[in-house]
Order: sequence, then structure tokens, then C-alpha cells
Amino acid sequence: MNFKIIGRFVAQILAIEGVFMLPALLISLFSGEKMAVSGFLLALAAIAAAAFLLFGLCQKAPKALNAREGMACVGIGWLVLSLFGCLPFFISREIPRFIDAFFEIVSGFTTTGSSILPNVEALSKGLLYWRSFSHWLGGMGVLVFLLAIAPGSKDKGFTMHLLRAESPGPSVGKLVPRMRKTAIILYVIYVALTLINVIFLLAGKMLLFEAVCTAFGTAGTGGFGIKNDSIASYSPYIQNVTTVFMALFGVNFSCYYLLLLGQFKNVFKDEELRAYIGIILIAILLITLNIRGLYTTLEETLRHAAFTVSTIITTTGYATTDFDLWPAFSKSIIMFLMIVGACAGSTGGGLKIARLLILLKSLRRNIAKVLNPKKVRVVRNNGQVINETVIENTNAYLAAYVLIIIFSYIAISLDGFSIGTNLTAVLACFNNIGPGMEAVGPTCNFSGFSDLSKLVLSLDMLAGRLEIFPILLLFSRSTWKH
Amino acid sequence: MNFKIIGRFVAQILAIEGVFMLPALLISLFSGEKMAVSGFLLALAAIAAAAFLLFGLCQKAPKALNAREGMACVGIGWLVLSLFGCLPFFISREIPRFIDAFFEIVSGFTTTGSSILPNVEALSKGLLYWRSFSHWLGGMGVLVFLLAIAPGSKDKGFTMHLLRAESPGPSVGKLVPRMRKTAIILYVIYVALTLINVIFLLAGKMLLFEAVCTAFGTAGTGGFGIKNDSIASYSPYIQNVTTVFMALFGVNFSCYYLLLLGQFKNVFKDEELRAYIGIILIAILLITLNIRGLYTTLEETLRHAAFTVSTIITTTGYATTDFDLWPAFSKSIIMFLMIVGACAGSTGGGLKIARLLILLKSLRRNIAKVLNPKKVRVVRNNGQVINETVIENTNAYLAAYVLIIIFSYIAISLDGFSIGTNLTAVLACFNNIGPGMEAVGPTCNFSGFSDLSKLVLSLDMLAGRLEIFPILLLFSRSTWKH
Repeated sequence: MNFKIIGRFVAQILAIEGVFMLPALLISLFSGEKMAVSGFLLALAAIAAAAFLLFGLCQKAPKALNAREGMACVGIGWLVLSLFGCLPFFISREIPRFIDAFFEIVSGFTTTGSSILPNVEALSKGLLYWRSFSHWLGGMGVLVFLLAIAPGSKDKGFTMHLLRAESPGPSVGKLVPRMRKTAIILYVIYVALTLINVIFLLAGKMLLFEAVCTAFGTAGTGGFGIKNDSIASYSPYIQNVTTVFMALFGVNFSCYYLLLLGQFKNVFKDEELRAYIGIILIAILLITLNIRGLYTTLEETLRHAAFTVSTIITTTGYATTDFDLWPAFSKSIIMFLMIVGACAGSTGGGLKIARLLILLKSLRRNIAKVLNPKKVRVVRNNGQVINETVIENTNAYLAAYVLIIIFSYIAISLDGFSIGTNLTAVLACFNNIGPGMEAVGPTCNFSGFSDLSKLVLSLDMLAGRLEIFPILLLFSRSTWKH
Repeated sequence: MNFKIIGRFVAQILAIEGVFMLPALLISLFSGEKMAVSGFLLALAAIAAAAFLLFGLCQKAPKALNAREGMACVGIGWLVLSLFGCLPFFISREIPRFIDAFFEIVSGFTTTGSSILPNVEALSKGLLYWRSFSHWLGGMGVLVFLLAIAPGSKDKGFTMHLLRAESPGPSVGKLVPRMRKTAIILYVIYVALTLINVIFLLAGKMLLFEAVCTAFGTAGTGGFGIKNDSIASYSPYIQNVTTVFMALFGVNFSCYYLLLLGQFKNVFKDEELRAYIGIILIAILLITLNIRGLYTTLEETLRHAAFTVSTIITTTGYATTDFDLWPAFSKSIIMFLMIVGACAGSTGGGLKIARLLILLKSLRRNIAKVLNPKKVRVVRNNGQVINETVIENTNAYLAAYVLIIIFSYIAISLDGFSIGTNLTAVLACFNNIGPGMEAVGPTCNFSGFSDLSKLVLSLDMLAGRLEIFPILLLFSRSTWKH
């Protein structure tokens, strides 16, 4: 483990964070929010100092890095990003306790959207913007951004190891042979879709500031709202636009690239996309049938059902209604969607549909193998044979996923909440969704948990966003050997 | 799929069931329980008729069978066993609804111990005996019994396929080269341990009938009590004896065989046994600390903690106290133990500790592989390399395990119970434990569920006892092709 590589890397990340904090500072300046301004200024000073110190100490770092260092870079990078990113909240005293500020910004960067704030509307504009922007930055990945702007490194291993550690999904797809170009394409699509989302929201007479913040939360599949009731008080048009755009951001971005290239057939044949759409439609149908009678019109029922399915499967976490009041059957479908999550290569979290498909196919193969051990079978995706290593990794991922849920559940149960609260709190944080049920339902928040639980849930959010291993590695002794 | 093989097989199973029903009939006769006697007589008549019919139809069945037919034999065999085994309850009108009687006997044979009876003490003696005996028969496996008494088949595939389908654990261990001898050794140990248990209970001044029934439930790790408060009203001595014997029946029976052979060193070095004991001691310690103050003395606290840990990890399901009233932390540990389960090759259910160890080790290997792809690594158990097929099967088992829990949860949530009730009901049935929490806690029962939920939970119990695949296969179209 070469610590200088990590140090230089963290310095770059901090530099990007500092630059991206400036718009929030400007908003606070123009809005005359004195405490927020001082919060941002002191945070920026700390970020600058830390970045310069690290750049100075780690100048002679080698350019090449191995898989272990790539993982450590990503894990530590995101932790540092969060530790400095929460400073404006803490210094401005708008979130007086450090663990709360940390929880809130981790929830932002990991695009979770779980909040400890009982009254979001009390936040200053600058901090509201920073909070929502953290979703947008975390959604596509700050390291992918670094790759996109960094001068093309000749060491392919370097970029590949990083992208592999930060990208969601069972296998990393390169759209084009050059990693840097892939990262640029991803960000161009991301920016373009976000802009279109803003335009649609503005067309519904939303204010510019609210439209931008809402689009950040949608694009990153984050879910921090700027109103206490999330999206509930907005017009049905705004709600429907958000439903559609959440679903769009849950699609594998390579599908959009293929669409741009005119390869419509490949997109429509994509197994993951088909499963994603299929699950969404079936879930909307089942929930609509189950909650009929709770709302006055079919339009309203369908709107809330579609919004909730879209917000949960994409792991966004906005809400138009308190789904914790729905019947148990609808809630069980919501919990299922929490686990499934969005498509690989999207900004969404969860287990990912691609992984679910691999698990199902490898399970089917395993049964066939038990029954007829002599026949050799392969697992295919979109007609192509899946590498056995990917299957192994996916199975290991499931094991790690289940174990983390169990141990997080045990840890937070010390606070004495109900089974439903504890389970959905872990599911909501680990899958980067936002609200859970019962005491952490859509109308509640996470402020009731102890500091230990907030720390555990913060680590769950990071583990969920970075797909477990970069965070798990930080707890391994061998990582810290020089 | 050769249906005649299955038919002949089912006929043999029915014959055994009929023979084992006779003691219960005699008890009813001596106790003068007219309705129960008629229930047993009619059930025996039905069993005899079905067995003769099947023997007649399937005389020309081939002796060899493949893995698929072995699985189907076990799955169908257990279903038929339950369908006929519930007849005495139903015909005697002591359980007036068929689905309830079916649920109850499935719970018995699968050694689950979940009951739909609000008042167990109202049952006749004969039926109480049959209910407890079903645990004992199901614990070691009725097919293992068949192997033990059947004339030594020359086709090793036949017996191996059956034993593999019915035995708990990630890999089937043969104690001795001959399968039949293995089956006999297992049953001798089983009978001997049960007898010792009865003697210890009699020493505590328990009545013979109660001691035998309690020992049946302990040996099979079943948990059907003969009192409404399970073991709570018995003396501390009886409770402690039961704690110890439950734990003993959760140990891999091959350990006892090794002890008989004098190989103490191999037993004490066994990784699964060490993990089992370690988990039990840590769980008792944590729960004792967590529930201190709830009981008057340390002795009482420790007794209830040890009993509950032993009853849950071995998936027995007896209770001395209502652990649903314990703090959330203790309940989360109990839920963890529900999933872990006992040792492979014991009468206990759950995921099994051997599987957990394989999952943890293969996860560790997978992380090491991601970090250093070039190095070849093996997974070891007790120093021996584990076959890659076993690792693959274990990972597939976890995937199937998680999927079944999710889909069962969704299905029973139609009844509208809470998250905690639904989750622990599925965990308790699928892991063959017995009581869950909240509405299915130790002082409650499963009678509140709808018929659909009772059917789903019955299938969960069977899938848990037979380790998923024999039951999963019954839902596959290719199983039913001739």
C-alpha cells in the first residue's frame, strides 16, 4: 500500500470539492446568509489547506496503482469528501452536531436522501443548494469526474481500477476503448438529461432554484427535498415529470449512448432494461390494485403508485404521499423494490437488476447442475456468455450484502426501535434510498437514532454507494500495511 | 422422470408412517379418546389403501434412479407424508379445518414447532403424542430411516441421491463407506441420546408421557410443547436439562460417531463445532447483559438467556419466557440466531453454521482475488480443501434462501400484519424454528393467518427442512415430464 498515491488522490478530490462549493457560497452571499457564508468560507479554507498539504507531501507518488490501492483511494476519498463536505453545515451551526452534519452529507454524496433534519425549510438557500448538489456530484461519481477532466493518463490500470471501484454494477463496461472518453461521454449525457429535467420542471412553473435543486436530487437519484413534504405539495404535472425522470436516471447510461449511436435494437433487446421496465409496471399495477379506495380518483391513485414505485426502485427517495400508511402488501412490494434497486451503470443504488438477473440465472444453472452434473452450462446475458469471475463476484456480493444488513441491524437495534423501523432504516440507507418505514417513514427522519447508529448507517450508505468492497477494505488490517 | 419409482417410494414411506402411527392409536385407545381413535383408524385405513394401490401400480419400477428422481422422491414423499399425517387431527375434529391440520403436521415433520392451536392442552393424549412424535421422525429424516431398515441396495446412486436430498448441510458426509450402515449408526445415536434425555427428564420428576413428548421435541429440534406455556411452568432443572439437550441435538451427529471411535482430538478441532459453541456463548453473554434487571436473580436471567439462545440456534422453538418482550437488541440477536441455525448433519434447521463458514471464507477469498487476481486460492475446512462445487452450491443456496424469504414475505403480507410479524413468521417457519415475534411471538400462534399464508408458510417449512431444492423442483415444469 503506497500512501502517497492515496494522498495525492485525496488532494485532487478535495480540489474538485472546493471548486464545486463555490456556487453554493455565491448563493449564500447573494441571499445575505451570513452564517452560511462563514461556514462555506471556513470549509473552503480547510479544504484548501488540506489539499495543499497533501499535494506537497505526496509529490513523488508513483503513477501506477494496483487494485488494492484503487479500492483504498475510492474508500478513503469518499470518506474525506464527506468529512470536509459536512463542514459548512456544522460551522454555520445550521446542523449543530458534527455526527448529524456528517450523516447528512454522506446521505447527500451517496445519493441516499435520508435526513436528520425535522425542518428542511429552515435551512439557508446556500446550504440547501449544497445539500442537493451533493446528490448530483455523488450520483455519477466524483472520481469519474476526475477521470473526465484529468489529462489522459497513459496507465490504463490506474483509471480502470478507480472506475471499477466507484462504478455501480457487477461488471464495468467501457463505452469506448479510452477510459477518459468514456467518463466524458457519461458526464455529457448526465448534464444533458439534468438540463432537460430542469426545463420540464420550469415549464410546470417551478422556481429556478427549486427546479435546479429538484433536478439534482432526481438526476443523482438522491431524494433530498427542499420542502418538508418533499414533492407532495407540487402540482401533479411536476410529480409526473419527476416520476418519469427518476425512472430515466435509473437506466444504465450505456443505453443512452447506444441510443445516440442509433442502435435502437440493442437497447430494446437489453435484458436488464426489459426486466427494469417489467418490474416497474407490475409493481405499479399491484400497488394500484392494493391501495384503490385510499385516494379519491384513479388518476391520483395511479400517480402516487407510479411515483412511489419510481422513487423506490431508482433509490431516489422523494415522496408524494406517506406510503407507510399503505396496506402491508404494498409496503412489502416497496421493500422488495428497495432491495432490487435500479440498473447497473445508472446513478441508482440497491442490489442492481443486472446482479439480480445473474443471481437468478446462476441459481437456475446450479439446480440444473445438481440434477445433471455431467453437462457443462454457461450463463448468458443478452446472448453473451458471462465470465465465471463475474458470477463468483456477484455471489460474493450477495453474501457481503446479507451479512452487512444483519450486522447493521443488530448494531442499530441497541436504540430500541421496532423491527420494522430497524430493518427499513438499514435497507433505506444501505440501498441509498432515503426514507424507510414506521419511525423512519416518509414523514419522519433519522434524528432519533443514537450517534453510534448514525455512524453505522453512514458507513452503510457509503458501502452501498461504493458497492461494499472499498469500504469493507478499510476495516482490513492488510490495507494499512505499508 | 419415472413416476413408478416415485410411486413405489411413496408407498414405502406410507407404510412406515402407518406403523409409526400405531403407538399413538394405542395411547388413544387406552385413554378412551373415541374421536381420536376413529381419527387414527380412518387415517390408517387411508394410508393402507394408498400404499397398497401404489405398490400394486408401481411393481415394475426400475431400481436405479437419477438425481432428479431422488429429489422428486424426497419432495413428494414429504408432501404425501404430511397429507396423510394430518388426517387424525382432521378426522377427529380436534383441528376442524384441513389447512390447519396440514400446517400443524408439516410443522411437526419439518421440526418447526409453529402451531395454529391456541390451546394445546385441549388436545387428546394420542394426538399430542403423534404431534410430538412427528418431530422425532422428521428430525433425523424418514428416508434415512427407510435406508436404515431397507435391505442393502446394491445401487449406491439410489441411496446417495436420497440421502443428499434429505440431509441437512452443504455436503453429505458418509460416516462409513456403506450408506445403509451410516443410516443405522445415525439412528442408533439418535435413539440413545433421546433415551438419555428422557431419563434426565424423569429424574426431574416429569411424568413419563410428558418426558417422552418433550424429548421427542428436543431430539428433533422441533418445539411442539404439551403445555400452553411450553416449558415455562416446569422446574429450573427441567429447563436446564432441555437447554443442554437442545444444544446437543444441534451438533453434527458425525461428531458423536467420532467420539464413540475415540477421536476426541478431531472433534475438538472441528471448526463448525467451535463456531457453534462460540456463537452460543457470545449470544448468551450479550443477551444476559441486555436483559439484566428484567428478572429477579442472575440465575434466572442466565437460565432464560441460555434456554432462549439454545432453543433458537438449534431451531427447536420451546420457550421459558416471552422473549418478544425483551429489548430490541436481544431480539435482533435472536433473529440472527434464527438465520444461522444449527450445525450441518444435526436435526436442526436454518442456514447451518457450516454454510455460514463457507460463505465467510469464500467471501474472504473473493476479496483477496479482486485485490490480487493472479494468485490461486482454495477454501479450507478443518484443513481440507473444500470442493469448488460445494462453494458454488452454497452460494446458490444463499441466493435461493434470500429469494424465498422475500417472496414468502410478500405473499403473507396480504394478510396485513406488521413488518415484524411477517418477517419473523417467515424466518421462524423457513428456518424450522417455531415461534416468531409480535403477533406470532412465543405466547401467540399462527391461527390468525389466512389459508393462503398458511399454505405458503407450510411450503416454507418443507423447503427449509429439505434444504430448498426438493421443494423448488416440484414447481419446475421439467420435473413433471415423463
